[in-house]
Amino acid sequence: MVSSKTARKLEVASPVPADIDIANSVSPLHISDIAADLNLSPHHYDLYGKFKAKVLLPVLDEFQGSPDGYYVVVGGITPTPLGEGKSTTTVGLCQALGAFLDKKVVTCIRQPSQGPTFGIKGGAAGGGYSQVIPMDEFNLHLTGDIHAITAANNLLAAAIDTRMFHEASQSDKALFNRLCPPNKEGKRTFSDIMFRRLKKLGIDKTNPDDLTPEEVKSFARLDIDPDSITWRRVMDVNDRFLRKITVGQGPEEKGMVRETGFDISVASEIMAVLALTTSLADMRERLGKMVIGNSKAGDPVTADDLGLGGALTVLMKDAINPTLMQTLEGTPVLVHAGPFANIAHGNSSVVADKIALKLVGPGGFVVTEAGFGADIGAEKFMNIKCRYSGLTPQCAVIVATVRALKMHGGGPAVVAGRPLDRAYLTENVSLVEAGCVNLARHISNMKAYGVNVVVAINMFSTDTEAELNAVKKAATDAGAFDAVICTHHAHGGKGACRFLVSWLLANNALSLNVTEYCDKVDLGIAVQKACENVTETMRFLYPLDISIKEKIEAIAKSYGAAGVEYSEQAEKQIAMYTSQGFTHLPICMAKTQYSFSHNAAEKGAPSGFILPIRDVRASIGAGFIYPLVGTMSTMPGLPTRPCFFDIDLDTTTGRVIGLS
Amino acid sequence: MVSSKTARKLEVASPVPADIDIANSVSPLHISDIAADLNLSPHHYDLYGKFKAKVLLPVLDEFQGSPDGYYVVVGGITPTPLGEGKSTTTVGLCQALGAFLDKKVVTCIRQPSQGPTFGIKGGAAGGGYSQVIPMDEFNLHLTGDIHAITAANNLLAAAIDTRMFHEASQSDKALFNRLCPPNKEGKRTFSDIMFRRLKKLGIDKTNPDDLTPEEVKSFARLDIDPDSITWRRVMDVNDRFLRKITVGQGPEEKGMVRETGFDISVASEIMAVLALTTSLADMRERLGKMVIGNSKAGDPVTADDLGLGGALTVLMKDAINPTLMQTLEGTPVLVHAGPFANIAHGNSSVVADKIALKLVGPGGFVVTEAGFGADIGAEKFMNIKCRYSGLTPQCAVIVATVRALKMHGGGPAVVAGRPLDRAYLTENVSLVEAGCVNLARHISNMKAYGVNVVVAINMFSTDTEAELNAVKKAATDAGAFDAVICTHHAHGGKGACRFLVSWLLANNALSLNVTEYCDKVDLGIAVQKACENVTETMRFLYPLDISIKEKIEAIAKSYGAAGVEYSEQAEKQIAMYTSQGFTHLPICMAKTQYSFSHNAAEKGAPSGFILPIRDVRASIGAGFIYPLVGTMSTMPGLPTRPCFFDIDLDTTTGRVIGLS
Repeated sequence: MVSSKTARKLEVASPVPADIDIANSVSPLHISDIAADLNLSPHHYDLYGKFKAKVLLPVLDEFQGSPDGYYVVVGGITPTPLGEGKSTTTVGLCQALGAFLDKKVVTCIRQPSQGPTFGIKGGAAGGGYSQVIPMDEFNLHLTGDIHAITAANNLLAAAIDTRMFHEASQSDKALFNRLCPPNKEGKRTFSDIMFRRLKKLGIDKTNPDDLTPEEVKSFARLDIDPDSITWRRVMDVNDRFLRKITVGQGPEEKGMVRETGFDISVASEIMAVLALTTSLADMRERLGKMVIGNSKAGDPVTADDLGLGGALTVLMKDAINPTLMQTLEGTPVLVHAGPFANIAHGNSSVVADKIALKLVGPGGFVVTEAGFGADIGAEKFMNIKCRYSGLTPQCAVIVATVRALKMHGGGPAVVAGRPLDRAYLTENVSLVEAGCVNLARHISNMKAYGVNVVVAINMFSTDTEAELNAVKKAATDAGAFDAVICTHHAHGGKGACRFLVSWLLANNALSLNVTEYCDKVDLGIAVQKACENVTETMRFLYPLDISIKEKIEAIAKSYGAAGVEYSEQAEKQIAMYTSQGFTHLPICMAKTQYSFSHNAAEKGAPSGFILPIRDVRASIGAGFIYPLVGTMSTMPGLPTRPCFFDIDLDTTTGRVIGLS
Repeated sequence: MVSSKTARKLEVASPVPADIDIANSVSPLHISDIAADLNLSPHHYDLYGKFKAKVLLPVLDEFQGSPDGYYVVVGGITPTPLGEGKSTTTVGLCQALGAFLDKKVVTCIRQPSQGPTFGIKGGAAGGGYSQVIPMDEFNLHLTGDIHAITAANNLLAAAIDTRMFHEASQSDKALFNRLCPPNKEGKRTFSDIMFRRLKKLGIDKTNPDDLTPEEVKSFARLDIDPDSITWRRVMDVNDRFLRKITVGQGPEEKGMVRETGFDISVASEIMAVLALTTSLADMRERLGKMVIGNSKAGDPVTADDLGLGGALTVLMKDAINPTLMQTLEGTPVLVHAGPFANIAHGNSSVVADKIALKLVGPGGFVVTEAGFGADIGAEKFMNIKCRYSGLTPQCAVIVATVRALKMHGGGPAVVAGRPLDRAYLTENVSLVEAGCVNLARHISNMKAYGVNVVVAINMFSTDTEAELNAVKKAATDAGAFDAVICTHHAHGGKGACRFLVSWLLANNALSLNVTEYCDKVDLGIAVQKACENVTETMRFLYPLDISIKEKIEAIAKSYGAAGVEYSEQAEKQIAMYTSQGFTHLPICMAKTQYSFSHNAAEKGAPSGFILPIRDVRASIGAGFIYPLVGTMSTMPGLPTRPCFFDIDLDTTTGRVIGLS
């Protein structure tokens, strides 16, 4: 029944053990077996140990011209703070497609930040019997991409402060002499990267000695306005005390103190660049044109102006290669990039999806997850990621739960760490029906892109048939291609697939008292049909050649807003980006995921509200403008009792314990 | 003539190209070939791409009981700021032993910090035709060990500030309730790591509910004295503006601001732990007992008290495996750890040396480099590293140059970036002879450990025969086993080995106009003889069971000091460490490498001075007390024109350019 070469037996235990214990109970296949199943030869990848490999970018050139497989994006309805099982559904869908329906399939997911692994949230490898393994490697350093981002981000930060320091204490001439020092023969040269700044300044001279004093000044003095600096340092740790700091207080820094702060590494613009780039050459350009702030005259200052675009690319040269891993059932996974889903676009990388689409080929499936609710993650997938990649999805899966729909129908607040209200544990069809307005709007929003929408109803044991039928009906009424019930076993949305359970039953390998099965296979079949029956062509929500405000308003309308209100600061920033020539960029809304509106408490499908834009910022290198709708925290904190209290290494076996 | 299985042809160009260009001109062998030459099977290592592999710690268990090879440490005389070619000599010696004399050999060297690679210094892979390759991988992320250290160090830092924050706002009971929350059945449990704190407090209860209010208080409240915190954050970037900062200025941190700072990552105590640990279990204990500061009552607070010893071990579990690379001539190199040479012990890892000694076996050679002059690096190699490893070296190589000896004889100051004074470019035998006091003291100091001392005279083209003979004579007079002239070609101490040149001549492959050859082969032969003819047994400079002051004074005496003077702060710290029970630790002097004394300007072999101890600190987890003789910078800065201006990626070939 399971025909994939790399499929394997799972030993299922009851009650479902901790994620790390399930992950450790399976011996992963050597990653070269997974690679071979995808027709990858050893020269196509670099091994990182036995269970991880980086697929090398030249694979794309080699497969150029060969046709792509189907492209499926997984989003969700507006979630509760508990999450609705999007990652688990994504992995489970792929296990169904690959291990049961015998399709070529690649799961493309984001690399999680290491911060939450040791903080509150724990790991992000899926859950229960739908996981990416080895889950400890997935949740920890992986192949070092986030560490590379941290290093590159902070080298740029150090260069900014140091450049201001050196400019403050040196004359134009001394500065220039240091930047272009004479060699032994007394001859000066520009380094390659300096020609980028010269070009920007309109100076076409190639001999440093030919520059006029005015040109020397404009070349050598970036004259950064300290108040304009938007580039912050980053760290892949939940360190709340670094949110706002003062630097430069050492005596050698001569009083050049400055207020700044750290974000968590995945919030770095370099992460967004990694996620959106299409090639080494493209990454080089994007990194070089990242804007760190303005000169006192108001001109944007870039990484290339600081002499750093090349060095940053060198630091990121391995990070651009996606990491190949596997699911518990031996289907391939590409893990790559993990940009924030509010101040950035919250999707895994273009490069991984492109490679995956070639590897699965026609009839195969690439399933990629978009962070947050579909109003944010999937919207940005369409309007930012697909715009830069040129790729066209056929199907959007929207993961819904009865629990979240009851909340949208008016149920009491769902709070992490507190017991669920009775409303969520007993049948209440009308509450579900009322909440389906949220699902319906997500469906119609997604359909507007020209894709087929499949609703995956992630079922809990407390859900009743009547409730589930209400969701199915609402989904179909709203124009979904299909709505499929996926039954995970009771406690916590973790569970095994029907095919797996059947197979285990057939093999007398089941020690679990299973009363409900998940229908991930049905989901697989539904997704397959949705992909095969696309009738429309892909459309974007807005064109790029309209104003920044018009773009913001188009997105706001999709939220149900009646209008948009700009703060004075937002107006100022929009005017600045417009004058700097950045109007052509797509928009990345930094908005709460807990409501269509700016107010997390407004559930369901609010409309008629005015969306307030507090500020507007830009990631010029990554390639988007991001309006801030409310305050976004870009550095999480640690609770009184972080996850790390339970995490340890069994020093005899070398195995990680206590990771959740 | 070259019989090693993995030896290869080198194409030598003139003039000697940039290091990265030489490194790029050679196609490295697949690292599995290098591993196979060492009798390593694929299950003994994890590949990290094609040219790096992590040798797994269980190799040590497998080879337990098999005899070790010879153990050679490379140190240097007191250097000029230009460096005397210690790394290049180390790599060259191994190339000679392995590729020419056909001995089993492993070079054990430190992983360099990424900071200087982009700052002033450039890379650290050796130079010219004596390099570790691929040199870009060596100088950049390598296999992520330093990134793991950064992550672990900063998780601990975040935990410190957050714990103080949570303790400040919660009652003993609330704190305890959060640390040991009741489960669904209302039952509380301690996590495993909490039993370490309970044990330390003398509480042998296992049920949280049985604790008295007093016990609850002492368990839950670490009561860290903010002024006592010695744990700083780290970053592997030259970021001088982080030397002194104020954290906690965000509104959510409620005014709990604190002055602190960042060091460069290699200055983290975790790096010293990595370098000194002998096993996973040992590393777990060392990480857990790292002291971050004191409670207000004066008790040391450890990583385990904060609940972090296990999580830190998990972060470091791959970092403990040394990275296998190769020299330009295909001999194996283990790159592992790179602790600071002043506030830490400046030597590569115990684990790498131990593995290497088993892999080369009897008659084979492990050559390991000790940072700084032999008064610091080699002294700490003997008294700290060998003390923890239990390993016994047979031979110490001391690298000397005529240039540095002239400086010690009274020559003008040598300053990096400025032209050398005439004294260094023309014959001056008496200046050399006068300077040999420095060499002589290093020789007699090293001989005191019971090893044979071989002096490697790293010759420049400006050196004359009379000058070189003066050094040879002085070395022999001082008791060196042998003194060998190693001739590198003229400009910059980079060059090719005689054996290489002969071989290239024999193969008509030489396009270089070579007038001088290096005698690294002679050095190889001398080192072999020195190892085969050890007559004494290894001795330490001081026993561990004397007082902290007596140990400091023993080391000071080896510097030529007549006595030691302690500041009030130093006295206070010594009293504290003594009362805390840390007197048994070895001493790691944080002293300038530019003089035997505390004053960098005192060249030669100063004596009769009083060594001032400004402060005394401790790395309890790593396992040493470090007295500060003067001020040590633990965070370098960037110059006006850092190396990064020249560093770029050729996006067509994927090759790094401009790395030096």
